[in-house]
Amino acid sequence: MVHISSSPFAVVAAEGHLIDSQLLTAIFDTVINRGGAFEVQQFDIGRTNDEFSKLTMKVTAPDAASLSALVEALLPLGCHVAAEHDALVRGVDRDGCAPDDFHSTTNQRTQVRIGGRWIAVDRQRMDAAIVVDGDRAACRKLRDLRRGDRVVCGLDGVRVTPEFRDRARADFAFMSNDVSSERRVEVSVARIAAMLRETKRAGKRVVFVAGPVVVHTGGAAYFSRLVRAGFVDVLLAGNALAVHDVEQALFGTSLGVDLEAGLPVSGGHNHHMRAINVICRAGGIEPAVRDGILTRGVMHDCVRAGVRFVLAGSVRDDGPIPDTITDIVEAQDRYAAELADAGIVIVLSTMLHGIGAGNMLPAWIPVICVDINPAVVTKLADRGSAQTIGLVTDVGLFLHQLASHLTPGDSR
Amino acid sequence: MVHISSSPFAVVAAEGHLIDSQLLTAIFDTVINRGGAFEVQQFDIGRTNDEFSKLTMKVTAPDAASLSALVEALLPLGCHVAAEHDALVRGVDRDGCAPDDFHSTTNQRTQVRIGGRWIAVDRQRMDAAIVVDGDRAACRKLRDLRRGDRVVCGLDGVRVTPEFRDRARADFAFMSNDVSSERRVEVSVARIAAMLRETKRAGKRVVFVAGPVVVHTGGAAYFSRLVRAGFVDVLLAGNALAVHDVEQALFGTSLGVDLEAGLPVSGGHNHHMRAINVICRAGGIEPAVRDGILTRGVMHDCVRAGVRFVLAGSVRDDGPIPDTITDIVEAQDRYAAELADAGIVIVLSTMLHGIGAGNMLPAWIPVICVDINPAVVTKLADRGSAQTIGLVTDVGLFLHQLASHLTPGDSR
Amino acid sequence: MVHISSSPFAVVAAEGHLIDSQLLTAIFDTVINRGGAFEVQQFDIGRTNDEFSKLTMKVTAPDAASLSALVEALLPLGCHVAAEHDALVRGVDRDGCAPDDFHSTTNQRTQVRIGGRWIAVDRQRMDAAIVVDGDRAACRKLRDLRRGDRVVCGLDGVRVTPEFRDRARADFAFMSNDVSSERRVEVSVARIAAMLRETKRAGKRVVFVAGPVVVHTGGAAYFSRLVRAGFVDVLLAGNALAVHDVEQALFGTSLGVDLEAGLPVSGGHNHHMRAINVICRAGGIEPAVRDGILTRGVMHDCVRAGVRFVLAGSVRDDGPIPDTITDIVEAQDRYAAELADAGIVIVLSTMLHGIGAGNMLPAWIPVICVDINPAVVTKLADRGSAQTIGLVTDVGLFLHQLASHLTPGDSR
Amino acid sequence: MVHISSSPFAVVAAEGHLIDSQLLTAIFDTVINRGGAFEVQQFDIGRTNDEFSKLTMKVTAPDAASLSALVEALLPLGCHVAAEHDALVRGVDRDGCAPDDFHSTTNQRTQVRIGGRWIAVDRQRMDAAIVVDGDRAACRKLRDLRRGDRVVCGLDGVRVTPEFRDRARADFAFMSNDVSSERRVEVSVARIAAMLRETKRAGKRVVFVAGPVVVHTGGAAYFSRLVRAGFVDVLLAGNALAVHDVEQALFGTSLGVDLEAGLPVSGGHNHHMRAINVICRAGGIEPAVRDGILTRGVMHDCVRAGVRFVLAGSVRDDGPIPDTITDIVEAQDRYAAELADAGIVIVLSTMLHGIGAGNMLPAWIPVICVDINPAVVTKLADRGSAQTIGLVTDVGLFLHQLASHLTPGDSR
Repeated sequence: MVHISSSPFAVVAAEGHLIDSQLLTAIFDTVINRGGAFEVQQFDIGRTNDEFSKLTMKVTAPDAASLSALVEALLPLGCHVAAEHDALVRGVDRDGCAPDDFHSTTNQRTQVRIGGRWIAVDRQRMDAAIVVDGDRAACRKLRDLRRGDRVVCGLDGVRVTPEFRDRARADFAFMSNDVSSERRVEVSVARIAAMLRETKRAGKRVVFVAGPVVVHTGGAAYFSRLVRAGFVDVLLAGNALAVHDVEQALFGTSLGVDLEAGLPVSGGHNHHMRAINVICRAGGIEPAVRDGILTRGVMHDCVRAGVRFVLAGSVRDDGPIPDTITDIVEAQDRYAAELADAGIVIVLSTMLHGIGAGNMLPAWIPVICVDINPAVVTKLADRGSAQTIGLVTDVGLFLHQLASHLTPGDSR
Repeated sequence: MVHISSSPFAVVAAEGHLIDSQLLTAIFDTVINRGGAFEVQQFDIGRTNDEFSKLTMKVTAPDAASLSALVEALLPLGCHVAAEHDALVRGVDRDGCAPDDFHSTTNQRTQVRIGGRWIAVDRQRMDAAIVVDGDRAACRKLRDLRRGDRVVCGLDGVRVTPEFRDRARADFAFMSNDVSSERRVEVSVARIAAMLRETKRAGKRVVFVAGPVVVHTGGAAYFSRLVRAGFVDVLLAGNALAVHDVEQALFGTSLGVDLEAGLPVSGGHNHHMRAINVICRAGGIEPAVRDGILTRGVMHDCVRAGVRFVLAGSVRDDGPIPDTITDIVEAQDRYAAELADAGIVIVLSTMLHGIGAGNMLPAWIPVICVDINPAVVTKLADRGSAQTIGLVTDVGLFLHQLASHLTPGDSR
Repeated sequence: MVHISSSPFAVVAAEGHLIDSQLLTAIFDTVINRGGAFEVQQFDIGRTNDEFSKLTMKVTAPDAASLSALVEALLPLGCHVAAEHDALVRGVDRDGCAPDDFHSTTNQRTQVRIGGRWIAVDRQRMDAAIVVDGDRAACRKLRDLRRGDRVVCGLDGVRVTPEFRDRARADFAFMSNDVSSERRVEVSVARIAAMLRETKRAGKRVVFVAGPVVVHTGGAAYFSRLVRAGFVDVLLAGNALAVHDVEQALFGTSLGVDLEAGLPVSGGHNHHMRAINVICRAGGIEPAVRDGILTRGVMHDCVRAGVRFVLAGSVRDDGPIPDTITDIVEAQDRYAAELADAGIVIVLSTMLHGIGAGNMLPAWIPVICVDINPAVVTKLADRGSAQTIGLVTDVGLFLHQLASHLTPGDSR
Repeated sequence: MVHISSSPFAVVAAEGHLIDSQLLTAIFDTVINRGGAFEVQQFDIGRTNDEFSKLTMKVTAPDAASLSALVEALLPLGCHVAAEHDALVRGVDRDGCAPDDFHSTTNQRTQVRIGGRWIAVDRQRMDAAIVVDGDRAACRKLRDLRRGDRVVCGLDGVRVTPEFRDRARADFAFMSNDVSSERRVEVSVARIAAMLRETKRAGKRVVFVAGPVVVHTGGAAYFSRLVRAGFVDVLLAGNALAVHDVEQALFGTSLGVDLEAGLPVSGGHNHHMRAINVICRAGGIEPAVRDGILTRGVMHDCVRAGVRFVLAGSVRDDGPIPDTITDIVEAQDRYAAELADAGIVIVLSTMLHGIGAGNMLPAWIPVICVDINPAVVTKLADRGSAQTIGLVTDVGLFLHQLASHLTPGDSR
């Protein structure tokens, strides 16, 4: 067609499980949604479930700027410019700012071409810049860029490899599950238990991200069992989880009555503040445990079991207690450090901390989100990867079930 | 005040736990919201938790019509016109229609004054007329009125006694619980189990109203346990519960895989229709059980255990199977008959059938609503009584917990 | 591979926008999920957005029964057995029952091969049998089968053509929208208004399916405007919508206060029953309009404008009024008759009637579901087609916006 | 009863609209729930709607500790120990910690008795200590206590006066509304508009607390109108609102397409990061406006109109931009300063910042919460006061409606 041939065009290529992962659909959709056109030059379909497919495609757009935006939008879908060039690298001219055309990362595996060689990018996470240092490249948040850092810009020399849904995996079907409250939760719990055992056996770390609902719904005792059984390597949470847990631990009788009765006790808010005051006076959770002030509960058990915890502050915190990191930049850095080598991440009823953690993770780390509110699960899953599993259920009962599947011996 | 004294007024009285049940607040609110004014003539407060309070109050309204509407609105709150007259009774002039000013019932205990005596109204339910026959009075739905029936009209000679929240009851605090997903469900399950045991011990009947989510969430096996343990006297449901249950029972392997896998199987809808076809061919569920076609599942276990079930049709039904009552007037009558002597009603994940059943119940029958969607629980509770308990949780896990609290011996 | 070649296999073919519509992904997923294997024999990709793709694939399964179930599961995805045979037709031996291996329909365009010719199936809907009569074939519900009807069975000679998402359509992107409350509703309303205008211009019919929330949320006045402007050809609803609307119309002042005040008025339930009584006495809505008893509201405006309405009964109905069809089989048939030539269907806040209507529609009729509860929208969309649009928003405000986009002249 | 008379007891008194506000019910419930008993010594009911009621009551508990906890629980309900003593004041021995038995405040009006005189407590807020300085007393957060501060402890000499629901107010009925999506929003919007006009006329300040959903749902343009019309005095938000708004402002075309199309654009996350980079490079929002980089949108309009904004950081922030306060203690202090003299607070779709702001407010400031998720509205309302109004609706359409009710002239 004359019209098209006179338009600017690019030839892009992609390779992988393009159909299984619905990448091919997404690629074509993206071209059309952005007002472009495509012409498949070559497509070799994987003949069996194991084989990759290969695509070479010519994309056209009305003008050069649109074409550039279009190709940029195709990158996260695994397309790369067919003609190979080195990545363009520019220097940072001001701390905390990237060049205008910096490559903003996804959470997918990324390679950059430097000096004719494709280099895998380290510390993959979304919404970062790629800093090149000699023959290494790594993600860095904008705020951590420093004058002189060499940052990848533009579209050339960048290759993204989306996670492929792997139908050969035992949990393939489980993974591709929709979010719904009309599912049999027990089956999912058994699978998650299996994934946790497998993670531990593989010597990887299990990270829990938990909100205070874990305590309200009576899940704390079961979570403590997981801690003691060795299935919690790190706990990422906020001030509220810790305070609610401490409150339950300290005001055993009255709040024992409360959780026993399933009722709000008048004056309970009062206990909340007294719990904060006790921990502040003790100088924090660890000193409170050491000094015999805090003798039970999730936080106590974490201290005793040597489970690291990071409490990130938020504008709705009461107190906060000394353990809570009030600067959110520092809190993010601490979260990121703990997530760096996570084998699996389980988010329990906390949209705030769950999204915070999710932003830091590469796409290939399995994330399990449990919440009774389907909107929260959907929102967390949307930001995640093909590896995200959402479970709409009661968190207290979920933890009860999960703890009954896992025994101390399993974690070794 | 001159203005008020020249307005039409009425003197009303009420007696009972007016403060505990927030009736006094509601009475005053109603007067003010409707543009009236009140003057308390006498109020004797119950000095202790056990004593009743007594109110005599003069209410004024701008005109006679408003006053009448106002006093009518105060009736369900336990107020009655202080001056005692017999109830006005009019004859029905046309089948299925009441006189224009008929007294429309609430679900609260009601008495009418006939021949100078206060008579308790039988078959109390909301949205009915009161038919007087000699020295008896009973609720009757408008559609069941027949020419010549004598119906109570107007405001005189009608007394409503709202259920009082009884703080002396062990489950008082439990009953007054708010709807929230942030509660410890385990405590509530234990209480409900205790209520079921108590109901059976008292020789009363346990009625379950259940939606198909019971099957989807894997609760069917646990519900069957309750059936076999004798904790289900009646099952009120719709076509869908039965069909989903039969489908699971008949296509054991493939749907066993489904529930085992927690996954939608392509072609599952197919099984749904085949299940319907099988039951239609057998002539219904009972024949299918008798003929050895249906050998497991909730419906099978109900037939075997002699549990009566009523399946009410709806416009979204597939099939329906022969057991489903397609006429909703007949279905309502059958539901009402089964609910007539219910000791407790438990609604599992069905707004449609739950509201249907709730409409038929007097206020003093405890109703427990379990649903993962808080909006459903709130809506069911809104139509209920002080005795309604809402539980926001996963129905499958709820049934698992409940079944583990109840053993066959308990039901006798 | 020896193992595979000794397994039973079938060769299936498919053709169409297999990638755009994610059919190819679904086809491969289905094979693997059901324990089969596939080998693509030929795949010609559509080179541009307009071209079809063509697939020929060999599928293997462990045994003949699995293979048969697998091929059956592939049918709704557009696959058909490559070798062409006539469909197997069996006679019905009992009213209301199909042969055990009857083909259970989807809502997709279907053809059957009879006497060597492919015949399009009439009255396409899901969950039906296909009855062959001479050289015609049509969907029929199981309950409508009669002894001697000739019904298509098995897999041979059946071809399903799934709706393809058509990227060339102006509303392609709109159609593929996810369900979320975090969207700009105004854009969607403008599109829906355009679709309605287009539907009317094309001489097709607009069907609304509406719940009582339309009245509660103040949407009735705006819906009436649509009725008067000619944008409502049929109204499918239940007893509650009509009763709430009549109640608002009859008790103007008091309920005018209610909707004006946004408040529940004590005694309002009373009005509900009086409204029912008035309509029962009048003999129905149309007589009530004719006799000047009902002079405003949605139902009145429908009668005046000659808009047909069908009210389907349900077990939670009060009354019901004489217009409500109490037998749900008859109600389904009446719904189905009105939906037979619908050009577009808009479902407003009613899961019950929305699913009922959705079950009757072929996949190519656009359905728009509006509800403030995302779970309802998701559930309705799940049962729908590629043409389903979900909108999570306030129904009252939605109708306000929609009415402001549409003027009487537009509907002609 | 001998048992009771030998138990420890206290005599408490309360005065006010005890019935209207359901305080009397709550008082009695609290006594019984905590295992105590009560005996009303005197109760004078307000005879008309305007008159106060007065209660004197003897409460008994099993032991002295329970009695003390019980009386403490009755304080927030307006009860005070009948016998008048001065408040007990203790010195702070450690920065950031209160004495163990400090009085933890509610958000209700509080007085303390010092030197025989009742002093009103300044800066009332919940979860604080009361610091006495000469003849003044004020709330102070625990973390702001300094060694030597004199803090009120125990129960004596503290009086709390709960807000009474005032039936005489025009908006009484509106205020007491339940949370439901089945309401007519238009009526509520008109009332809120009237409240805003009244607030401005009274010379008080209107504070908005807003989440990014305001931008997603297309509400930004309407919110900007409110800013320009003078109806926004302060904007409390987070990093996300600002970034989403800037992104929309900067990438007009592409995101114009996005909001116009109601669609996620691939690569949109990219724009998100570029927006952050632009603002970081500019040095913040105000410099970006000054330098002509940011020329439209909510943040721009706030700068131009001199509307103060405070952006509180959170662990899920991207960036954050320089305007975002990353330390949450500082952010809380800045929020609190802006809320100190608020006349009305409107929370738009943000649970995090809404709860943060709600914690800082005294009970008598009206708070309006708008969210499409009923759970969020319920949660915010639970922490609020009798003055909290919840509205379950689409935020974009709400702002459209609200802006159409308010014109610039109204704000003066």
